[in-house]
Formats: sequence, C-alpha cells, structure tokens
Amino acid sequence: MVPHLITALNGPIKELEQRILESLPAIERWFRLEWMEHTPPFYSSVDVRNAGFKLVPVDTNLFPGGFNNLNPDLLPLSVQAAMAAIEKICPEAKNLLLIPEKHTRNSFYLMNLATLMRIFTQAGLNTRLGTLDESITEPTQVALPDGSQLTLEPLQRQRGRLMLKDFDPCTILLNNDLSAGVPQILQGLHEQYLLPPLHAGWAARRKSHHFRAYEEVAKKFAKLLGMDPWLINPLTVGVQGLDFDSGQGLEALQEQVDQVLNKTRRKYKEYGIPEKPFAIVKPDAGTYGMGIMTVRDAKELTELSRRTRNKMGCIKEGQSVSEVIVQEGVLTQERVNEAVAEPVVYMMDRYVVGGFYRVHADRAADENLNAPGASYVPLAFAQGGQLPRVGEKPGASAPNRFYMYGVIARLGLVAASYELEATDPDAEVYA
Amino acid sequence: MVPHLITALNGPIKELEQRILESLPAIERWFRLEWMEHTPPFYSSVDVRNAGFKLVPVDTNLFPGGFNNLNPDLLPLSVQAAMAAIEKICPEAKNLLLIPEKHTRNSFYLMNLATLMRIFTQAGLNTRLGTLDESITEPTQVALPDGSQLTLEPLQRQRGRLMLKDFDPCTILLNNDLSAGVPQILQGLHEQYLLPPLHAGWAARRKSHHFRAYEEVAKKFAKLLGMDPWLINPLTVGVQGLDFDSGQGLEALQEQVDQVLNKTRRKYKEYGIPEKPFAIVKPDAGTYGMGIMTVRDAKELTELSRRTRNKMGCIKEGQSVSEVIVQEGVLTQERVNEAVAEPVVYMMDRYVVGGFYRVHADRAADENLNAPGASYVPLAFAQGGQLPRVGEKPGASAPNRFYMYGVIARLGLVAASYELEATDPDAEVYA
Repeated sequence: MVPHLITALNGPIKELEQRILESLPAIERWFRLEWMEHTPPFYSSVDVRNAGFKLVPVDTNLFPGGFNNLNPDLLPLSVQAAMAAIEKICPEAKNLLLIPEKHTRNSFYLMNLATLMRIFTQAGLNTRLGTLDESITEPTQVALPDGSQLTLEPLQRQRGRLMLKDFDPCTILLNNDLSAGVPQILQGLHEQYLLPPLHAGWAARRKSHHFRAYEEVAKKFAKLLGMDPWLINPLTVGVQGLDFDSGQGLEALQEQVDQVLNKTRRKYKEYGIPEKPFAIVKPDAGTYGMGIMTVRDAKELTELSRRTRNKMGCIKEGQSVSEVIVQEGVLTQERVNEAVAEPVVYMMDRYVVGGFYRVHADRAADENLNAPGASYVPLAFAQGGQLPRVGEKPGASAPNRFYMYGVIARLGLVAASYELEATDPDAEVYA
Repeated sequence: MVPHLITALNGPIKELEQRILESLPAIERWFRLEWMEHTPPFYSSVDVRNAGFKLVPVDTNLFPGGFNNLNPDLLPLSVQAAMAAIEKICPEAKNLLLIPEKHTRNSFYLMNLATLMRIFTQAGLNTRLGTLDESITEPTQVALPDGSQLTLEPLQRQRGRLMLKDFDPCTILLNNDLSAGVPQILQGLHEQYLLPPLHAGWAARRKSHHFRAYEEVAKKFAKLLGMDPWLINPLTVGVQGLDFDSGQGLEALQEQVDQVLNKTRRKYKEYGIPEKPFAIVKPDAGTYGMGIMTVRDAKELTELSRRTRNKMGCIKEGQSVSEVIVQEGVLTQERVNEAVAEPVVYMMDRYVVGGFYRVHADRAADENLNAPGASYVPLAFAQGGQLPRVGEKPGASAPNRFYMYGVIARLGLVAASYELEATDPDAEVYA
C-alpha cells in the first residue's frame, strides 16, 4: 500500500518526529481545545514539505480538488467525518448543492466530483451539482472515465435562495475557489448555509493572511512541544503594489527576498545545515501552482525575462498579479521511485481523512511540484495496522511519519480557521 | 479481505436490501434526526442474524469485548469516532480510566483491552487500566500474545472520585458488564463521567426492555421504508417468576413459547417460508451466550433434563435465573467456509466502525454461536472501494450486504438509547 519512499532525513526532523510521537495524547488534546474556540473549514487539503531538517505546510487549499486521489479503502473516514460535520452545521439537512469548478473537460476533476458526491450521499444527503457555467442552461450529462456519468444543472436564484429545478438545498458546498470573483448569483444567500464562506475564495483570500495566522499557530504549538517554531514555520512576508509589466515595485520585492534569504542563511548556520537557501515568490491570491518562482539570489529579480514577467503577472482566469508573498523555500526530501515528491494531506472538518504524494519526475527538490506533468500516488495515511506507534526508531516508520504529516497539516487547518475569523466581513466587533 | 461467503438469500431480504440501498440518504438522515433526540451509547456491538427472508439484531452488547477482532486497517474509523464522542462528552478530557472485566488470563480479551487503549490514546487521552479485581493491590503487568504488555492498577476511591495512584481521570469507561452487581467503589461517582451509565450493566439491564424499545424503533423504521416491521423484528416476550430448579413457572414459559411459535408460523405462512419455526429462551439479564436454549416445540419444556435445568438456572458469575425472554428464533443463512456464521457489528458513538463474522463449525443454523469453539473472521464492513453502490443486483454485492447489516445494527443502537432513557434511575420526570 505504501509506495517506495526514499527520504533523506537527518537530525532535527527525527527529534521532531520523536517529540510528536511522545506527545501524541497531548497534541490531540491541544487540537481538541483549539476546536472548542475555533471552527475548522468544512474541508481542505494541505501541501506539506519535508526538508529532512524542517517540516512545513506550504499551501492550504479550502476547495480541495483531489478526493479521487485518495486511497479508496479509506473513503469511510471521509464519510464519517462528513457525517460529523453535517451533524454540527445542520442535522436536519436533506439536500446538498455542490458547486464545482467550470472545467468540465478535465476528467480527473470530474472524478473528484464523483467521489465527493459518493461521500455526501453516503453521509445522508441528496447531492446534486449546480454549475456556474452559464453556457449550461439545462441538465447536462458528462461522461466519466469509469463509464459512469455526472449531471450538471443550471443554478436558479429565487429571491434569497439558490436552487436547482425541483431541488431546494439547505446547504451549498463550494468546490469552486472563486478565482474569477464572486458571481452575482452567490451573493446575499442568507437563508442557506454556504460553505466555505465567500471570503474563503481567492477573490478575497490572501496567502499573507494565512501565513500570518500560521506563524501564530506554529508558535503556540512549538511552545507546547518545547521547540523552535522555525522547524515548522516557513518565513513569509507579503509584498504589495507590484507591476511585473512595468517593473514597478520590483526593488521592494528584491529587498524582501534578500531579507528572507539572509534570515534563512542564519538559521541554516545555527542548525549546521549545508544547503543553499532559496526563496519562493508566489501570488498572494490564487492557486493552481501558477505564477510561482524559485529565487536563489535577489539579483535574479533585476534580470527577469519578458517570459517570466508575463508568467508572474498573470494567473488563473487571467487575473493580474500586484501582490505576492516571499516565502522561505523548503526543500522536499521525499522521493517516490526517485522522482521528487511532496505529501498532500486531506481533511474533512477537523479530521485527517487521507492523503497522497504529488510526484513530479521533471522537477527539482526546490521547485513547485503542482504543475503539468505531476502525478499522484494514493497513500494510506491513516492505515490501521499503521496507527502510529510510540517506540519505533524515529525516521524508520512510515506510519509515524504520516502521523507527523497529519499533525503539520492540521496546524495549517487551525491557521485557516484563525485566518477566516480575522477576515470575516460579517464578524461582530466587540469594542 | 472479504472471506468466502455463501449466503442463501431469497425474496424478501433482496427486497429489503434494495429498499435500503435506494433509501440510503433518507436512512442516514433518519438516524441523524434520531440522534438529535437521543444519545447513543458510548460504544456497542450488535449480533445480527440474516435468515435470508428476515434480518434482525439478536443481541446488543453495551460493553463490547472484541475490538481485537476488527480489521486493523479500519481502526482509524474507531479513532475518529472516539474523537467525535469525546469532543461531545468532555472536550477538555485528559485522562481516561478504563475498567476491564476480571478475566486477566483470557489473552483474547487482553488484546481487546490493548486495542481499546490504542484507540483512546490515539484519540488524545492518557489511558490507564484500573481493575475491580481486589487481588490486585499494586500495578501488575500482564503479558500479551504479541509480546507487549498491559499494566493493571488497583482502583482508589477518594471521596467522590475514582482514581489510580497519581492519575485523576475525568472520564471512566466501563468494559465490565457488571454481571456480578455494581461494586461499592463505582457507586455515587457524581464528579466524573461514568460511561456507559451503571444502569447499562447487567445488574440492572433487561433484554425484555431492550426488545420492547427495539420493537418501537423497528416500527418507525419500517414505516419510513414502507415495509412489514416483522422483517426486521424478532417477536420477543419476557417471562418472570421462574425457578428452573423446582419447575415453578415453567407452564407460563411453555405458554409464551407456544404463542411465539404460533405467531411465527402464521408469518411464515404469509410469506411462503418453508422453514419450521423455533424459539430461543434466554436469561432476561446477562451475557456470554450462557443459559440459551433452542426450543422447537413447547412440549420440550416439560421434559427438561437435570443438566439443562442446571444450565438454564445459572449463568455468568453464578447468578441464578428467574427471568427469561422467549424470542422468535431467526436462522442464520450466512456461512464462512461452510461453517455457520453470524455478523457482529461494532459501533463507537453513532458510527459503524467495523465488524466480523462469528463462526462456529459445530453449531447448526438455529443455534446460538456465542459459545466455546467459536472463531472470528475480521470483516472489512466499511471498506472503501466497498462503500455501498446503488444499482448492484440485490444479494450479489458484499458491500451492500454489509451496509444493510450496519443499518440493522444501528437500529439496535437506537433501541439501546431508548432503553437507557426509559430505565435511567436519575431521569427527570416531567409531570
């Protein structure tokens, strides 16, 4: 079940693994107490990077699109977590409206939708698909690679409610990250539960907010375990007012990159890490691994080619980029059959429900792997014989490593809940 | 993963399976609404009998002892369910005290305890074992078949609290069914959560109460599905005031057996079932498959041998039997490698977390299988590729059958929650 993994691990990460395993009940209790105060996002996936000496979440996706990549033997975990989530939000729920991305030709994405529909049907909800694609004006069947099919239906707005023909949902679940902005038809839905909330979409969300929240979470958690938060936190700063086309703001960006590289260099020295620091520049809003740049020296930014400027300046749905984050680059030391790999952890409500390795044979250990050519290896993150076992030699036990990845991913989840609270436009302000 | 099953299924059960599969979201919603009004027992196991034409729960155990028989690949389901349960009962919980049965020489039972400890540790609780065995006066290690060991510790009572040395739990979980009565040391614990409550133990519990509640549940559920409740309900009556030794009350028992056999005969006729009816007589309180008798004709009761009278008159912990239930016998048509088998479904909180087949090569299809010589075949009740699939031919799909078993077991669970409410000595009475 577990793919062939070659992981070069050294000192600090073994200590981290050991400390996490030894503190297992305390860690689970810590999460339980966090969830008493904060509401987890309905579902999510977190990309994790294991550098051997450092382990961090690099992306927290609130509209996860790869449920089809999870080990099918573990789907009951998703069903059970979905049941628990629904029970808290709206136990009387009967109908669930799922709103997908528009790319109906991507058969992998369609399989993700089919998997989500199975999960929610099994959890006790009549689930149907309503599309934001205005070219779909009547129920339209699309074929899946496994021979089955999905029906996409046009959305109908009836005053305050969003519906399909003969289908009135009490809950609407977005699997569309709203990169193109919030469509009119989704605005002002006060009678129905809309999950995740609109401000979790990329029209409003900012990675810089997320990583600010994550820094706070990492500090709290590091205190619980008595360790340096840097070991689980990638240094991150936001840079605004950029125009890649005219070159405006590039100096400020350069300065931030330089600072991040210097700070990283000092930490590497402190821990005796012989690697060369690098930084990642990526859009503050947006997804799909577009517009991401690996920078090893701030000077590189003065010599950006026309092609790179175009690439950085424009991401999904043609949005132009004027805000970016500069993040300490974290190598991945995970390999699947010698190709560079990074674990992706899936969560439903507060529960880890599975994961997989994103594998890219043509990319290096310091590059983004979420790019064309990536493949996916389902991973039994929580396989039973493979509940973590205290006492195994650190670094030697795959189940223990996966447990650790689940912990780090859940730190990203806690950060997302802080972030969504802080950015909630409807939040009550206590003076 | 799924053992070789030979199941003779005919008409009615296929209809039931089809109806259950078609109604899947409605059924899950029905359970969700039940759990809004009622609290599920903390954990449980339900013995299910599939006669081919009828499917019923025959025993609902509130102190389940076979977690070691579950498919280890699915233990994460138990962990997740335990997390959800703890979160509702006492999210701040840090320490869990588990109180086992006394038979410390039964290595199967010890493996059950080890499995429970793993589940609760993983769910975020420091878990220790406190024994009611007064011969254990200091921490005592017992060896497990897998080479590991458990530590049993003596209980300490400090005023209103139950503790171990240097261990103050907020929650106490009984895995001891209190057949021998409620020990002094467990009484009056008002500062800690005691789960399940004392009146769930066999010192107070009665099968006749359970099956009265189950009848109500079966009727509600049958109405939802538009079917005859008899298809999921075994006719059951209680008989009191028996003395097997002197023969007192045997006539009344005979009369009840006669009535149950007659009613069953009429139902068999209605459905064209060519089987010969039989009844089961078993103690109204108690467990471990002791003191159970298969009766094919009420006259058999006038000719009870001395041996049978002794067997019926005395069960676990030497308790004498004066109350029994007479229950319509339900054949099992399940076979594992040609041996008679019955499914046992395990639940934690409201969730089905696994199951296995109890198999007995030396018993007949109309006999109790919970007896020496039984063996256990772990079953991936909820295996992922095996989420139920609507549209499969009824009777042909193992995952669909297991889903159906999970539904029937959960009806038993709902009944247990009704039963515990009705028998709660501390319940508030609204005039």
